Amino acid sequence: MTQAAAPAVAPATDRTRVRRAADRGRYDTDTLHSIVDAAYVCHIAFNDDTGTHCIPTACWREDDHLYIHGSNGSRMLKVAAAGTQVCVTITHIDGLVLARSAFNHSMNYRSAVIYGVFERVPNEHKAARLDAFMEKLAPGRSLEARPGDENELAATTMLRISLEEAACKIRTGGPHDDEGDLSREVWAGVLPMAVVAQTPIPDGPMNHLPDYVAKWAAA
Amino acid sequence: MTQAAAPAVAPATDRTRVRRAADRGRYDTDTLHSIVDAAYVCHIAFNDDTGTHCIPTACWREDDHLYIHGSNGSRMLKVAAAGTQVCVTITHIDGLVLARSAFNHSMNYRSAVIYGVFERVPNEHKAARLDAFMEKLAPGRSLEARPGDENELAATTMLRISLEEAACKIRTGGPHDDEGDLSREVWAGVLPMAVVAQTPIPDGPMNHLPDYVAKWAAA
Repeated sequence: MTQAAAPAVAPATDRTRVRRAADRGRYDTDTLHSIVDAAYVCHIAFNDDTGTHCIPTACWREDDHLYIHGSNGSRMLKVAAAGTQVCVTITHIDGLVLARSAFNHSMNYRSAVIYGVFERVPNEHKAARLDAFMEKLAPGRSLEARPGDENELAATTMLRISLEEAACKIRTGGPHDDEGDLSREVWAGVLPMAVVAQTPIPDGPMNHLPDYVAKWAAA
Repeated sequence: MTQAAAPAVAPATDRTRVRRAADRGRYDTDTLHSIVDAAYVCHIAFNDDTGTHCIPTACWREDDHLYIHGSNGSRMLKVAAAGTQVCVTITHIDGLVLARSAFNHSMNYRSAVIYGVFERVPNEHKAARLDAFMEKLAPGRSLEARPGDENELAATTMLRISLEEAACKIRTGGPHDDEGDLSREVWAGVLPMAVVAQTPIPDGPMNHLPDYVAKWAAA
């Protein structure tokens, strides 16, 4: 995950330049896409006349946009669709980093912060985008489940935001201890964690087991 | 996780009342504490003169406050310490809910949204609060690792926010399909997921294995 090799998403802007632990900043497209694609949800910060909010919602990526959707009645979607500036953040926690001193404790993580404005996905494109979302989660399923009908699609707001103004921040590896602490008698290292698939729970008896369920069960 | 049994955190305010899928709203202390205590990080939304931001950071709870800390140089901590209204959100994803129709797909999750203003934790209380944080992550470790010295504590900003204005939202269980879709030949159910401890990675040879590392390895 080096910064030099991959093409830049965009030059870091004043908002996206990582300042704290700046060596953890990443601005290349491959890193950004890998962090976004590993996520089931993002957190969306926005401001309205009642204050600043931070709401989690499902998301997926196609090409250079992140997509979200939900009920037409959602406050967040209404505010976001109106062109309000938002900040979309995705975070994966990979481990606790235990150093020999309290001060040097840390976490391993991968995060992406995206700034911009959402735009509406037109009605005629919603069905294809939802199929793409389902294919990401469960390849082949968009051909099995009943697709949304006209009313269901009309009740759904879908928005997308460009990934152009974005920055990632990544920490990997073990603790960075001060020289004077290295001889201290205390366990140091990483306690890693990961999101792991658990046993599928069928909703009643099922006549067939699609590949994506078998794979989930085997993970 | 019933709403009726536990004492209310606070009456839902205009900001915290869950409107979309209102039956998923929870306002009791036990639910809020369990969601916060299961989290390693929260997302903090705040507004400054460059816009709206959403930044992940480590957090822990003591009694009725959520705590965060970091470098004095952190923009987020400076803005939050200045009394800016923030929204702190914690989200756990528990599974993908696959319904027989595309429209009824969902996710199982537990989320908490906290509104308010951070306050500074005074210098003389930082060490004890950091010990409590470390004890939560690794019981016994605060007696082993070198504690923060005067300079390290002085370089650390610690803030806390009351959990008083908060709301949780939880979805559990299988898909809710429309009657007309139930006979459709498609797998339906839940693909659960969980954050799972992975094998500890020691930073070089270690002379002893503390309980919290052994437990992590066995999880």
